[in-house]
Amino acid sequence: MVKRPKPLSVLIERLNKLPGIGERSAQRIAYHILKTPEKDAEKLSRAIMEVKEKVIHCSLCYNLTDQDPCQLCQDPSRDKGTVCVIEEPGDIYSIEKAAGFKGLYHVLMGALSPLDGIGPEQLRIEPLVERVKEGGVKEVIVATNPTLSGEATAMYLLKVLKPLGVKMTRIAHGLPVGGNLEFADEVTLARSFQGRQEL
Amino acid sequence: MVKRPKPLSVLIERLNKLPGIGERSAQRIAYHILKTPEKDAEKLSRAIMEVKEKVIHCSLCYNLTDQDPCQLCQDPSRDKGTVCVIEEPGDIYSIEKAAGFKGLYHVLMGALSPLDGIGPEQLRIEPLVERVKEGGVKEVIVATNPTLSGEATAMYLLKVLKPLGVKMTRIAHGLPVGGNLEFADEVTLARSFQGRQEL
Repeated sequence: MVKRPKPLSVLIERLNKLPGIGERSAQRIAYHILKTPEKDAEKLSRAIMEVKEKVIHCSLCYNLTDQDPCQLCQDPSRDKGTVCVIEEPGDIYSIEKAAGFKGLYHVLMGALSPLDGIGPEQLRIEPLVERVKEGGVKEVIVATNPTLSGEATAMYLLKVLKPLGVKMTRIAHGLPVGGNLEFADEVTLARSFQGRQEL
Repeated sequence: MVKRPKPLSVLIERLNKLPGIGERSAQRIAYHILKTPEKDAEKLSRAIMEVKEKVIHCSLCYNLTDQDPCQLCQDPSRDKGTVCVIEEPGDIYSIEKAAGFKGLYHVLMGALSPLDGIGPEQLRIEPLVERVKEGGVKEVIVATNPTLSGEATAMYLLKVLKPLGVKMTRIAHGLPVGGNLEFADEVTLARSFQGRQEL
């Protein structure tokens, strides 16, 4: 059996591990990299390492950032009284593009999912409780995904935060239930912010 | 406008340049790399550079290889009297998987396409003529793609090689015309080898 040169099959195998990249796509990308100027391949290779070295989590809101605190937490024009709670850092960009929200964020880094071993301790819930306890937060908007685990997380947050006397709201189910915040269109997402209900 | 951390947006931009990777896929892959253990990201990063550093073209057949001559040209069990001419190095693996072909290969590195500025000088046609002139080659199987430029290339090869007294064959049009050799299924590809016609 004729084999591909080792470095080529190693690259195909590595690309194949990325999400949404099948065997065929991995081959196509590997051959593309082979043909591409060395300088461009180097830039891609370096970009992969730099993202691992330089991108960290904001110590206040757990957003992805290359400075701490992040750009959002440092921005004096943002309303520090409103905190929007989301599951993943990427959700911030969806909301910023769509919802006209001017407060701060808090990234949980996931949602409750006992079957996968994700309880409250695996999420950034304790730091959120601390943020609220410190005072200054008037409203917590829970913008976890409208999925089973997103809803469960919202209920859990209501239980631990409501006794602290903060106003708690949930973005409206303008989003199709069972869907994923990341894939919501901008209008639906904006409407779900307008129609938010007190928990 | 809130921006992603610079290293993250650089990585997304770089991934977006790869074939078949849109903006959404690039984002998904970049976030995946962020979450992946540092060791795995490093392996991917290194695999990209190694493929550029270590993979070369065989000086005899222009196949991709990390040794020169390549594994195929060095194999004493292959029939040196039959040379299969293909457009791209990747075509070798398709043929090896499917066609039961036991000769050697010659990679043209493309096909004639005057509108794109690709004439005979841009392809590895001259070295093929030399291989045939040196003697020992009894049959040249032209397995360029069944596309306009693949057919034009086949006709051109017939013109320059036939006068040298070598038998020339073309793989049969078992492949759907207008298609691409890379995507042919194995049975179709095997049948096109069996039904090859003298040019």
